[in-house]
Amino acid sequence: MTDDHRDGELSAHHEELVLDPSNLEAERHAYYQRFERYLADRDEVALKRLAEELSPGDLSEIIRPFDVEETALILRRLSADPLAEVLGEIDNRSLSALFALLDIDEIADVIEEMPSDEATDVIGELEEQQAREILAAMEAEEREEVTELLQYDPETAGGLMGKEFATVPVSGNIGDAIGDLRRFDADELGEMHFVFVVDGRDNLLGRMPLTSLLLNQPETPIEGVMERDPLYVEVDLDQEAVAQYFMTHDLISLPVVDGGGRLVGRITADDVLDVVEDEATEDISRLAGVSVAEFGEQSSLRVARSRLPWLLGGLVGQIGTVLVLRHFEVSIENLVALSFFVPVIMSMAGNVGIQTSSVVVRGLATGEVDLFHLHRHLLREIGTALLTGTAIAVCVFVLAAVIVGRYDLALVLGMSMLLVMLFAAIAGTGVPLLLHRLGVDPAVATGPFITTANDIVGLLIYLGLATLLLGLHGGG
Amino acid sequence: MTDDHRDGELSAHHEELVLDPSNLEAERHAYYQRFERYLADRDEVALKRLAEELSPGDLSEIIRPFDVEETALILRRLSADPLAEVLGEIDNRSLSALFALLDIDEIADVIEEMPSDEATDVIGELEEQQAREILAAMEAEEREEVTELLQYDPETAGGLMGKEFATVPVSGNIGDAIGDLRRFDADELGEMHFVFVVDGRDNLLGRMPLTSLLLNQPETPIEGVMERDPLYVEVDLDQEAVAQYFMTHDLISLPVVDGGGRLVGRITADDVLDVVEDEATEDISRLAGVSVAEFGEQSSLRVARSRLPWLLGGLVGQIGTVLVLRHFEVSIENLVALSFFVPVIMSMAGNVGIQTSSVVVRGLATGEVDLFHLHRHLLREIGTALLTGTAIAVCVFVLAAVIVGRYDLALVLGMSMLLVMLFAAIAGTGVPLLLHRLGVDPAVATGPFITTANDIVGLLIYLGLATLLLGLHGGG
Repeated sequence: MTDDHRDGELSAHHEELVLDPSNLEAERHAYYQRFERYLADRDEVALKRLAEELSPGDLSEIIRPFDVEETALILRRLSADPLAEVLGEIDNRSLSALFALLDIDEIADVIEEMPSDEATDVIGELEEQQAREILAAMEAEEREEVTELLQYDPETAGGLMGKEFATVPVSGNIGDAIGDLRRFDADELGEMHFVFVVDGRDNLLGRMPLTSLLLNQPETPIEGVMERDPLYVEVDLDQEAVAQYFMTHDLISLPVVDGGGRLVGRITADDVLDVVEDEATEDISRLAGVSVAEFGEQSSLRVARSRLPWLLGGLVGQIGTVLVLRHFEVSIENLVALSFFVPVIMSMAGNVGIQTSSVVVRGLATGEVDLFHLHRHLLREIGTALLTGTAIAVCVFVLAAVIVGRYDLALVLGMSMLLVMLFAAIAGTGVPLLLHRLGVDPAVATGPFITTANDIVGLLIYLGLATLLLGLHGGG
Repeated sequence: MTDDHRDGELSAHHEELVLDPSNLEAERHAYYQRFERYLADRDEVALKRLAEELSPGDLSEIIRPFDVEETALILRRLSADPLAEVLGEIDNRSLSALFALLDIDEIADVIEEMPSDEATDVIGELEEQQAREILAAMEAEEREEVTELLQYDPETAGGLMGKEFATVPVSGNIGDAIGDLRRFDADELGEMHFVFVVDGRDNLLGRMPLTSLLLNQPETPIEGVMERDPLYVEVDLDQEAVAQYFMTHDLISLPVVDGGGRLVGRITADDVLDVVEDEATEDISRLAGVSVAEFGEQSSLRVARSRLPWLLGGLVGQIGTVLVLRHFEVSIENLVALSFFVPVIMSMAGNVGIQTSSVVVRGLATGEVDLFHLHRHLLREIGTALLTGTAIAVCVFVLAAVIVGRYDLALVLGMSMLLVMLFAAIAGTGVPLLLHRLGVDPAVATGPFITTANDIVGLLIYLGLATLLLGLHGGG
């Protein structure tokens, strides 16, 4: 990369149009419609002009609804630098298809422009053959960085980190630290907050905020002014733990070391933002029984394929409720009104199950709930269920008394309701905590499992109590 | 603050113990137990030593389960600087009670140490009388900053921003920019990434990364090297839009301007991390029918009070299902097996409702779904429901045929299932999109409303079709 290019970048960077964040949906849509029109006209010049006018972040959001061919048409003529930024943002799943429509050498040029962590994400998403070809076409330095980063699990600190960091030997001075900065591009420099201090074997010893480089004399020895023992994480730490670490210590950037303490990368808060958002989407998806992959997916067939196993699992569980009801066939024959309240029992059990399990699943993710205080949490939920259960029991007693006019049925219903809500609270709290202790992600199994268990146990309690107390077995 | 203090801070900051992020729960619990033991012994010296040993971020997490009196005992003897960091992190709801146990002047000293945005959050949570007393005891400069920040809605850019930023006049040079940095503390400097360029009326004109201050000569005019037209947000922009803006443009920090374009603050990515996490917790909570306030809440009574309205709302809706079933009393009398499948219908409608509405609610939050492509999203969900509905319909047909042995009932059940799932998909997609268009947060009303509507309509379809097609009205 030449200095020429570097200057060009700096001045170009801020002439782009950035959409007004207070009216984002409407502004994005207006641009989307312009792209749609130019695509219909196959007007490649207008497409290029429009794509160049927008900031890469906005552009990647605006073109999200287009399919791969349309996206390729829009991006094909974009120059390497904005294209690199757009590719870092767009949906990784369609990259392989998109790259099949572009020239390998062009792609390699574009990927060289990307920050090393984003370049690695992109290449990691490609099919092996395609990835190898692109790597081969890249320049040596960038290829080595990406090849190194590719060896780490994408969901760990190693998968989040980039190679764009400046270092200075502990024996050096402030001037040396500033000198190391000169080897970076303007884009990379804008992202830097610290210079890291290392010993002769690259072990992380300290850090210097850029401001302390500015406010000390060039000949000041690093050892006298550096911050010692800076915070760091190891390369194999799970990304969720990395995110918690950023939030606990209010970090903006963080060095990453390997098992031997050697500095191997740095993570910045903007990458962690994506982790926090993705992990939350994952929690919601699992609780709701959908897959993360279906966000942004257009094909009903693929969505159906990803949801069907979950629905079938629920259906298998529901065979239990059918069998419970069939078991109490005689009771229902003797008192059809019994069946009127089956949905009420089920829906209350369901509500309590969702409330309690969501609080545990989210609480475990944010650190509000932990294994060592689970008895406390369980007691809180049992207490809550006793209070809300009593209130709801009184209400359904009145309801049943008014609608059916039988106080004995109303009493059984009220008692059942309290027991059912208590059971739902214990299952909704206990099952995810148990799964967490067993090392299983509680969000995965919580939704369907708890709901089905609550339905079956709820109906057993209700119909069992009614049959027993109202004398409905045989001929009542 | 003296230079002495400043140096002390720098060197002290990194002698604290930071807990291992890969074994966090267990390490935190071990410390929690030590605090528990010292509290039981009322050993204030040991408490102080232990509190000082830990990093403020870890300390605030570890002491979260303690009540206000215990927390006050632990924090009372901590010196101002770590205490300021701990208070910035701990649960704001208990601050008023905590401060009632501490000395006003001490609190004021501690709050002066905090970054201005955190100090504002703390003071904003207090009762008015208490807040006024503390503000009066603070030094003029910090008081003015906090008083200014208090006027902004906490959930806007103004509520997130701090006053710790350096500026340089556009007519100045690099040396002037470096000069402005000298008025900040070491802590504040470590957080800085840019110097902002303003005109004579403080209007934001540009920014300079610290690296460009390092790599240019002091006499270089700002105007020649600054980045023009930097990204910014206005002070009243909603915090969710601020978070999206950070993510779209991969930002680390961002200037905030008032309506007239005057620079009034800056937001850093670590504050945005908390917003993203909180907004996700809010979405999950609303979908599940719990309140955000109950995370970390210990009292069953308060939890019950916050959940009961939601449960009662669900119960009122369930009166509809009772009435539907009573309406079809004769049909059920004629064919009790009809009631066996009520839970299956309800649970499938519920599952589809939760799947579709969660995808919309989360998609709207992350920008995957928007109003302008809602017909596309609705079509996707209808297509999915037709595919999964057909598959599930075939399964329940077989199930009913095997369990009850009546093919006509099995056929009605299968047909109903398809229709019910189709309706649930349309309601689960359409209702949150409609709420969003009306400007209502779709997460609030989605959970209970859709589930109840699905239950009622589902039973109407199933029992109505059965009564009609199986001739169950009157004497079948």
